[in-house]
Formats: sequence, structure tokens, C-alpha cells
Amino acid sequence: MIDKLVANIKKTNAPVVVGLDPMLSYIPASILNRAIEEYGETLEAAGEAIWVYNKGIVDATYDLIPAVKPQIAMYEQFGIPGLKAFEKTVDYCQEKGLVVIGDVKRGDIGSTSTAYAVGHLGSVQIGSKKCSGFHEDMITVNPYLGTDGIKPFVDVCKEEKKGIFVLVKTSNPSSGEFQDQKVQGRPLYEMVGEYVDQWGSDCVGECGYSAVGAVVGATYPEMGKVLRGIMPKSYILVPGYGAQGGTADSLRPYFNEDGLGAIVNSSRGIICAYKQDQYASYGEANYADASRQAVLDMIEDINRIF
Amino acid sequence: MIDKLVANIKKTNAPVVVGLDPMLSYIPASILNRAIEEYGETLEAAGEAIWVYNKGIVDATYDLIPAVKPQIAMYEQFGIPGLKAFEKTVDYCQEKGLVVIGDVKRGDIGSTSTAYAVGHLGSVQIGSKKCSGFHEDMITVNPYLGTDGIKPFVDVCKEEKKGIFVLVKTSNPSSGEFQDQKVQGRPLYEMVGEYVDQWGSDCVGECGYSAVGAVVGATYPEMGKVLRGIMPKSYILVPGYGAQGGTADSLRPYFNEDGLGAIVNSSRGIICAYKQDQYASYGEANYADASRQAVLDMIEDINRIF
Repeated sequence: MIDKLVANIKKTNAPVVVGLDPMLSYIPASILNRAIEEYGETLEAAGEAIWVYNKGIVDATYDLIPAVKPQIAMYEQFGIPGLKAFEKTVDYCQEKGLVVIGDVKRGDIGSTSTAYAVGHLGSVQIGSKKCSGFHEDMITVNPYLGTDGIKPFVDVCKEEKKGIFVLVKTSNPSSGEFQDQKVQGRPLYEMVGEYVDQWGSDCVGECGYSAVGAVVGATYPEMGKVLRGIMPKSYILVPGYGAQGGTADSLRPYFNEDGLGAIVNSSRGIICAYKQDQYASYGEANYADASRQAVLDMIEDINRIF
Repeated sequence: MIDKLVANIKKTNAPVVVGLDPMLSYIPASILNRAIEEYGETLEAAGEAIWVYNKGIVDATYDLIPAVKPQIAMYEQFGIPGLKAFEKTVDYCQEKGLVVIGDVKRGDIGSTSTAYAVGHLGSVQIGSKKCSGFHEDMITVNPYLGTDGIKPFVDVCKEEKKGIFVLVKTSNPSSGEFQDQKVQGRPLYEMVGEYVDQWGSDCVGECGYSAVGAVVGATYPEMGKVLRGIMPKSYILVPGYGAQGGTADSLRPYFNEDGLGAIVNSSRGIICAYKQDQYASYGEANYADASRQAVLDMIEDINRIF
């Protein structure tokens, strides 16, 4: 899957990923109201509204981008109907040729991590049939439980040709509370980065990158530079561009010399572009066109650094 | 909810929680086959089989125990139908008066953590109505992202009178890779424990314990002792008893002088008791009775330490 991600990035010349993290407050009133008319004020209405909203954005942007990153929490908050919208979104994006990175941040141990891994990236055996629960191409995972927690994901990645991004240094202000603590002479996130490099060492694709990537926030470029060196074969998924304060200039250190090695996420900045002054002229009815323009602007902004 | 948990523990005189972590391989063939006859070899069949199996165990044990801990990964692996079985299990256990601890190990930042928190412990606003996705009483959460990741859960706990257990020191062999690293002169897990104590400081219930508990594995009793002292007001959820090697003798340090402060989980040891030599005489058809006896034996074993 890392090979497909890199191929998609080369084809679109766009090292960006659109975060499909819908909040009900982002959704144009016409879409939400139509869903409520049909389903009442229910979780089903929320699920339907999210799906219609997402589809509009995907239809307007899929030819420009290599990948999307739906944040499962935004669907899970609406229970089963929300997760049905997640599933539909994942499947639709794949039909459109996009790599789907499920931002699920799962992490447990042993057979439980295996359950998450097969549930999101693989399949389960039921009687004589193999069935698949959710169907992302790659997911994000949490490293706090150590190798026992990550190894089952790596095993499934190898078997199913899928990929993971391990949280190394997150973009939020308090990420340093634990991640920046000095252990054996360097910050904990560097040690996690060393493990990431090691976990991915025997699943490097034809593109030269491994199936085990890392999440490193755009808000800490000096740390991004060090981590780039520690994990030369890991793709870095970079949240925090735009709304969270990361700028294109700060992104250079996340990329390798080949111009590859990083993919930058924007969520609100793209999917809710029509609510920003810059794109307000599109109006609510044309929210998807506003998102398209925001994607074009983001790609141009990021490609300036090369 | 911490008050209800403590009241339930006192009522049953059983500081134990049954981990409802079903694997298809645990389920008696008659139950699985009946589900497959009805739904084919599908995710729906898996969901139905899990639900029937769980219900049997809950019906046979609910009067003996204060709480259950369904591990969501074991349901999520079967996609939407699996999560429907999770939802049914949660609701059914609550009808039976049990406190339901969703072992979800979620963790993200800001509005995303809020989405998980309202999705599992609270409600979302849809039009003029409040709707609720999943309905656990308490959940487990991951601290790697720091206060930004935990605060939204604590806020929802206060508002909705729910509770969380933060992963501090997990029971698995590789938990030490990051959790045991020395930071500022003591292990990282101790620092996380200090944060847990602080996060819960202003949501202490009438029982004297806070809504912010901790997960500390039974496999590391000397660490449990230190953490007990660091977080005097936090309930400790203790995995790793039984199948993972923790013994009753090792559990004493997790409890306070009042005999409260800890709740010990057993999953496989209870729900799959009928496959153990000790309970094999019950036979597959009486798997739930085997689970009941295993619960009785566990309670007796643990109460020996007082």
C-alpha cells in the first residue's frame, strides 16, 4: 500500500491528504435539514448528512489528491449510524482510487491488537469464509504499549499489503508532557522513532519506503528534522498544517532529498473552506468547490518548498 | 459512576470485573452454527453468536459481580455487525445493574477526544435532540498525547457522571519499552500516575475515589505498590490476573487500607472457563455455568488476601 501511496503522490504531484473529519457544524444547513427531514433528529440523520457532505468533497477533489484520512472519532460519536457513514466513505474513496488512511489511533496488546488489525486492515475467518469489517488501506496506531502492541499490526500489514503510521510526536500543545521527556539522553519521541524504524525494517516496498510510517506534527519542525534522520525509510504523516498553525516553510525538514517521505494533512482547512473569509464567496451551496480551491491552494503552497 | 462502582463492589464483596472479550474460537459450536444457519457465514452471524454467548455468561454471573469490561476490539473486528453486538451487550449489562467499563483505549486531541468522549460516555446534539451513540459507564483511555487528550474525557465525565481509566502501566511484557523509561529520576509510568492523580483531583465522588482511574497490570506488583501511593484517590483497574500470569498474592499492593481502590479483571479465565481442565466437566453446553463457578473461585481467591 505504501507503493500505491507513493505512486498516487507522484501522479498528483501533491504530498497532501485531506482529513475527512466532519463536524455537524461544518455541514451546510440544506444537507443537514434534508437528512433530518428523512430520518428525524436521529443518529441516522447525522450519519446520512456526513456521508452526503463527504461525497461532495470527495467528488470535487479526488483527482487532485493521493489520499484521504477520515478521523473515525467524528463518525464513532454517532454510534452505529456514524460508523456506517465511515464505512461508506472509506469504500467510496477507494472506488475513486484514493488511498484511505483511517485515523483510528488504536493500540492494545497481543490478540486484541490483532483484532483491531484484522478489523481495519485485514479479514476475519467466519466458518469457511473470509469477511472484512472495515476496509482502510492504512491506519494510525498508538505506541504506548510497546512492541507487543505494534507487532500484530505489522504482521497484518505484511500479509495484506497494508500500512500503519505510528504516533511519534503529535501536533498538540501538551504533546511534550510525556513525548518530550528525556530518556537515556534524548527525548522519548526519538526513542519511539527508533522503534518505528526497526518495526518497519523488513517491510520496505518497491518505492523504498516501509509499511510502517510515523505521525509527526507540523508544529514541531526542528523535531521533524531529527525524526526524518532517525526513520529514513518511514513515510511521515504530518498533521497540524493550517488550522493548527503549521506553515509550508516549516514542512521542508519532513521530506527526504527525493522530495518524498512526507504527506501533509489538512482537515478543517479543506473540508470547511467555505466558512473561511478567503473562500466565502463560494457560498454554502458550493462548499465542495470551495474545498477544491482550498486543495489547489494547499498543493501550490506546499510545492513552493521544493 | 465511581460511586456506583464502589457500591456494587461493596454489595457483591467482589473487587472483580469480567472481561467480555469474546473470540469466535471460545464460542460453543452449537451457538456459532445456529448463527451461521440463520445468517450464513457472515459478519452478522459472528455478531449474533457473540451476543448469544455473552448473554449466557452475563445471565449466569451478573448477581456475583459489580462490573463487566467488554473489549471493543473483539467486536470491532467484525465491523458494524460486531459493534451492534457490543452495543447490545453494553445495554443488556446495564439492565442487569452492572457497571460497564468499555475497554476502548481511545486517545486523541481536542475536539477529536471530545468526539470519542461524547460518543462513548455522553451524547451529541442533533437538531433539537440529544442522542447517544454508545453508552458505556466508564472507558479506558490512552495518555500518550498528554493533557490535551485526556481533559475532554474528564470534562464529559464531570458533566455526565461517568468515569475513565487511564493506561499507566500495562500488563504486557513489552510495556516497559517506553513506560519504564526513566524521566526526571523516576519511570515514565510514575509521571503518568502523577498526572492521573491531578486530572482526577476535582472529580472525587462521595465514595472518596475520583472519576479518573488508572490501568496498572497485575504482572508488576512492585510498581502497583508505588502507583497506589502516587494516586491514592484513583481506582486501579488491574488486568493480567490469571491467564496473563498475575496471582492473587501479587494483588494486595493495588488495594488501599480500606480494602477498596482496585478492581481485578479476568477475561479468558472466566468467559472461556469451560475449556480449562478445571471446569471441563461442565461441558460445552453448560459453558455459562462453568463461567459462574470460575467467578466464584476468582472471588474467593482474591478475597483471601484481605
